[in-house]
Amino acid sequence: MRTARSTIRVLKVDSAIMTKASTNNNNTLGKVYLVGAGPGAVDLITVRGAKLLEKADIVFFDALVDPEMLTLCPQAEKIEVGKRCGKLSSAQHFINKRLVDAAQKHRVIVRLKGGDPMLFGRADEEIQSLKAAGIEVEVVPGITAALAGAASIQQSLTLRGVSRSVAFITLAQGAENLTPGQPISNPSADTLVYYMGRKDAARIAQQLIENSPNQNSNTPVQILEAVSTPRERLWTSTLEELAAGKADQWFDSSSPALIMIGEALRTNYSGAEVDFHQGKTGELLQKVS
Amino acid sequence: MRTARSTIRVLKVDSAIMTKASTNNNNTLGKVYLVGAGPGAVDLITVRGAKLLEKADIVFFDALVDPEMLTLCPQAEKIEVGKRCGKLSSAQHFINKRLVDAAQKHRVIVRLKGGDPMLFGRADEEIQSLKAAGIEVEVVPGITAALAGAASIQQSLTLRGVSRSVAFITLAQGAENLTPGQPISNPSADTLVYYMGRKDAARIAQQLIENSPNQNSNTPVQILEAVSTPRERLWTSTLEELAAGKADQWFDSSSPALIMIGEALRTNYSGAEVDFHQGKTGELLQKVS
Repeated sequence: MRTARSTIRVLKVDSAIMTKASTNNNNTLGKVYLVGAGPGAVDLITVRGAKLLEKADIVFFDALVDPEMLTLCPQAEKIEVGKRCGKLSSAQHFINKRLVDAAQKHRVIVRLKGGDPMLFGRADEEIQSLKAAGIEVEVVPGITAALAGAASIQQSLTLRGVSRSVAFITLAQGAENLTPGQPISNPSADTLVYYMGRKDAARIAQQLIENSPNQNSNTPVQILEAVSTPRERLWTSTLEELAAGKADQWFDSSSPALIMIGEALRTNYSGAEVDFHQGKTGELLQKVS
Repeated sequence: MRTARSTIRVLKVDSAIMTKASTNNNNTLGKVYLVGAGPGAVDLITVRGAKLLEKADIVFFDALVDPEMLTLCPQAEKIEVGKRCGKLSSAQHFINKRLVDAAQKHRVIVRLKGGDPMLFGRADEEIQSLKAAGIEVEVVPGITAALAGAASIQQSLTLRGVSRSVAFITLAQGAENLTPGQPISNPSADTLVYYMGRKDAARIAQQLIENSPNQNSNTPVQILEAVSTPRERLWTSTLEELAAGKADQWFDSSSPALIMIGEALRTNYSGAEVDFHQGKTGELLQKVS
């Protein structure tokens, strides 16, 4: 019985595609591309994303998207609709409405989102609202900050014999902030990467030391700010020092910070051999104050 | 005391960069770029990665890299050194040696790796061996399959009020396979994405139903094969059906499969509104046999 039910469901979907495709080919509505801008550096967008920017009629971009990326679309109308640090500078439903409106007037609409659209991006709300209006949507993935961060410090997030899993976590999404004192439910994985965790960093570290089977006070921590940009900064230490609040004064509240935790992030060579960020611009390392 | 120690460590690193930079500028050794090829589609490589391919003297590529991607580097010598499905078609130490050798003869060496180099990529072994030989390394991140998969099915991996975390997991890395009967240690996260989990899919599902606080028998499962390529296929069902082995006959052993599990992956619209993969080529959905 269960097998039969699955079959029917899948076949329904298949015929729905046919119907939808013909609806979308009437050429009266534009198509909206949700494009991941990547972590910051202009050339860390995908080739597909860059090509879409080149042919876009209009581009809606986040506050987290580097303005330099907009040099890829000189021909397009450019509209900032971004959210920053959990505050909505434009309410989500208003962004949704503007995207739907743009599809009435333009052929190629790009919604450029920092990082990857499907990870902490609230793309689902935009997709649902566009679909409800009969507008075709395509999602183009982007390099998420954790992968750019690992590339930058040249440390694998997973490591044979050390780490089989990595979790990407946020404690707050959009306006949905943690209330003070609310317990943090940390996922368990060999490597943990917290997005937007600056304010709760010491508390996260303390809870991991107390409760996590995979981490302890000696577990390496690498915090990266403004990954892949000329402003990139690195703080490297242990969970114990993070729990003691040693990073609190280091954070720059104007840049997104990525907190990477796990044994895989241990630098397994001596200081003399460390060779971070060669060929990169900007501040390399900041001392712990 | 701890603060002081951190400071010293960071400053040591800083001066090490200076020394290293001058060593690397002697022009006798080439530079090796570890470049993420992304999930498969040629235009899902980053702009930075594509530009490096265009100027590479020699490119070492994985078996998982789509041959079409090599059209981006017609000028380069191209050498397959890939690993596939846990089997080493070239032993890792042999790959390491070839990279070091290439840096004696060439200026721009690209090591092109499927997906992202720092996630299940064994890049660390190549980086260590290159650094030990005094060769400059830079890592260029790539779109990992999970993000391309989420983009393809247009389902967010995280979802406000539903999922704050996503874990990427592999049970086997390289030659390091699970022995039969060995317990699987599943990480806990709201959304789980298993790479290379085909053989263990039913067992993973059963263990999640029995032990996971975040999933149950009704939790949606989306399995994608050959993400972003013309051969992309989707299997959509529940943990219960996955545990019952319903996907086992569906898998195509020649393509990498991505098993995505979590409430965030529930398609929250009725069959008639589902609109997967519009504008994409290839097989869209396969029925459960």
